[in-house]
Amino acid sequence: MTDQTALEATMRRALALAANGPATGPNPQVGCVLLSASGEVLAEGWHRGAGTPHAEVDALARLTPGAARGATAVVTLEPCNHTGRTGPCALALIDAGVARVVYAVSDPGVSSSGGAERLRAAGVDVAAGVLADAVEPFLADWLTAARLGRPFVTLKWASSLDGRAAAADGTSRWITGPEARLDVHRRRGACGAILVGTGTVLADDPALTARGADGQLLPGQPVPVVIGTRSIPADAALHSHPQTPLFFPTHDLAEVLRDLHERGIRRAFIEGGPTLASAFVAAGLIDEYLVYLAPTLLGGGRLALGDIGVASITEQRHLAIDHYDRLGDDLLVVARPR
Amino acid sequence: MTDQTALEATMRRALALAANGPATGPNPQVGCVLLSASGEVLAEGWHRGAGTPHAEVDALARLTPGAARGATAVVTLEPCNHTGRTGPCALALIDAGVARVVYAVSDPGVSSSGGAERLRAAGVDVAAGVLADAVEPFLADWLTAARLGRPFVTLKWASSLDGRAAAADGTSRWITGPEARLDVHRRRGACGAILVGTGTVLADDPALTARGADGQLLPGQPVPVVIGTRSIPADAALHSHPQTPLFFPTHDLAEVLRDLHERGIRRAFIEGGPTLASAFVAAGLIDEYLVYLAPTLLGGGRLALGDIGVASITEQRHLAIDHYDRLGDDLLVVARPR
Repeated sequence: MTDQTALEATMRRALALAANGPATGPNPQVGCVLLSASGEVLAEGWHRGAGTPHAEVDALARLTPGAARGATAVVTLEPCNHTGRTGPCALALIDAGVARVVYAVSDPGVSSSGGAERLRAAGVDVAAGVLADAVEPFLADWLTAARLGRPFVTLKWASSLDGRAAAADGTSRWITGPEARLDVHRRRGACGAILVGTGTVLADDPALTARGADGQLLPGQPVPVVIGTRSIPADAALHSHPQTPLFFPTHDLAEVLRDLHERGIRRAFIEGGPTLASAFVAAGLIDEYLVYLAPTLLGGGRLALGDIGVASITEQRHLAIDHYDRLGDDLLVVARPR
Repeated sequence: MTDQTALEATMRRALALAANGPATGPNPQVGCVLLSASGEVLAEGWHRGAGTPHAEVDALARLTPGAARGATAVVTLEPCNHTGRTGPCALALIDAGVARVVYAVSDPGVSSSGGAERLRAAGVDVAAGVLADAVEPFLADWLTAARLGRPFVTLKWASSLDGRAAAADGTSRWITGPEARLDVHRRRGACGAILVGTGTVLADDPALTARGADGQLLPGQPVPVVIGTRSIPADAALHSHPQTPLFFPTHDLAEVLRDLHERGIRRAFIEGGPTLASAFVAAGLIDEYLVYLAPTLLGGGRLALGDIGVASITEQRHLAIDHYDRLGDDLLVVARPR
């Protein structure tokens, strides 16, 4: 099992194990395979979410004490060096007598990284970067959050082909069709928080829940986050949300994101009206754009996006299209900043 | 040759012949196959453009006098009943002794229709609608123009994903990439006229030519048409256009289109700035929309489309997407009114 092809095959298995874990929690999805010195699988493990054992510890726990001595641990993310609700994985591997650790992606976390160094210091053979091309995209949102110390931020808007979010009188139900609206709810449900401005709460009184085709609540529900200084009525619909809403009476968006990150939120979904959307774009805080375009024209002054601080064409905010999806009659454009 | 399948195969051949003719002239592209009573091909013909023989006459001219007696004429469009620069085809077929005429699509023209009736009155056996599903889309633009008594109108705009045609200071070179701009020029070259407002001429001084990748003039050049009451400088670039520009100091867009139709223009291409575009949309005079969307954001107040008379969401102008095309980094949405 010193051969690179075999190691990559084992890493692919570790990646499949990782995907068993929850995608929306604060922690990354990680998988681990323990191999004997002769290359046989001794145990497999994955992380089941915050507060439960990490993948390496989950795998080690399946073996009798001493059985991992001299083993190779193949793990999708660098073992952590951090004592949180669980002890550092690097230490657990050292204590179990693991001789070699192979991982795909380095841990960019401020408090959790350093695992590889600690392993090496203890005499463990460490190799990084195996199958990183496959694991990196799988962990992309979480890695962005870890690197930036804030959630991965998705901005969503729905507009007519001419860029309007509503007709001149403010009416907007519906611009996009049921397939597009269902797609939005599914994506809401995969995020830790949904952000809106106070203006949107006052104008639309949104429920901010993630719902299925029949209106039923989806398993994942983002925390409603309201940004802005205007007061919200006590009977606003978001007070009935299954998650307790958070209120940030501020215009410091970076500070709001830092706070959410500290609360364990790794993905934020912004669909809070043109004022909030434009402020996030202007601040350069968007990691992903979801633009739902409906084949309709509205004209008038109700734009999906307002002023984003671009004065001249040389300052335009170029995006890179990730992909287009046709959803019923509508088109979803998924893009990233370039 | 009484069998429907054989007739459809012959009509398919007539359609292929039709495509040999010019696509951008005032006359439709028409093809004709003359069959003997036993089903053998006697002659083929197609229309080569205004002032030249129609397809039926072109086919008949390839035979010695009398050779078409008792023949079947298979023709893509109902033979005309109109004396223009050439005589009526219905009469030519009758005079040649053709026994049967099979055509795909009826002629909706006010002055040219009635050919089938004239043929029947002369004792010719007439069948309509053969392969109409294939011929109708081929003639779609020309048929629209004939039915409405005005050119088929295409509205083109290029915008950022947020619906802006320019940055706040008016700069817009370039929002879309070279592939999209080349596609615009190719489509300009297939139209009889290109329409702009005086505001666009004053602001951008456009050449309004159809050019290739190296800036060379394409074979087809649309007539520049300027609509509006403001004066244009004598040294405006459009005065150097290979076609003599037309000026309409009016706001009556339907009247402009009627005038262009009388001049033989069957396809009009509007790319004349948001004021003219919005006026055409509001007047319900658009047959096809070409929306070039660039993956960029601009914000600000320079919209591709302005007020189109939609006050509430119930009045939104629903479009039907014909297709999407990716052009380099940009997206072209081709849509029709629904």
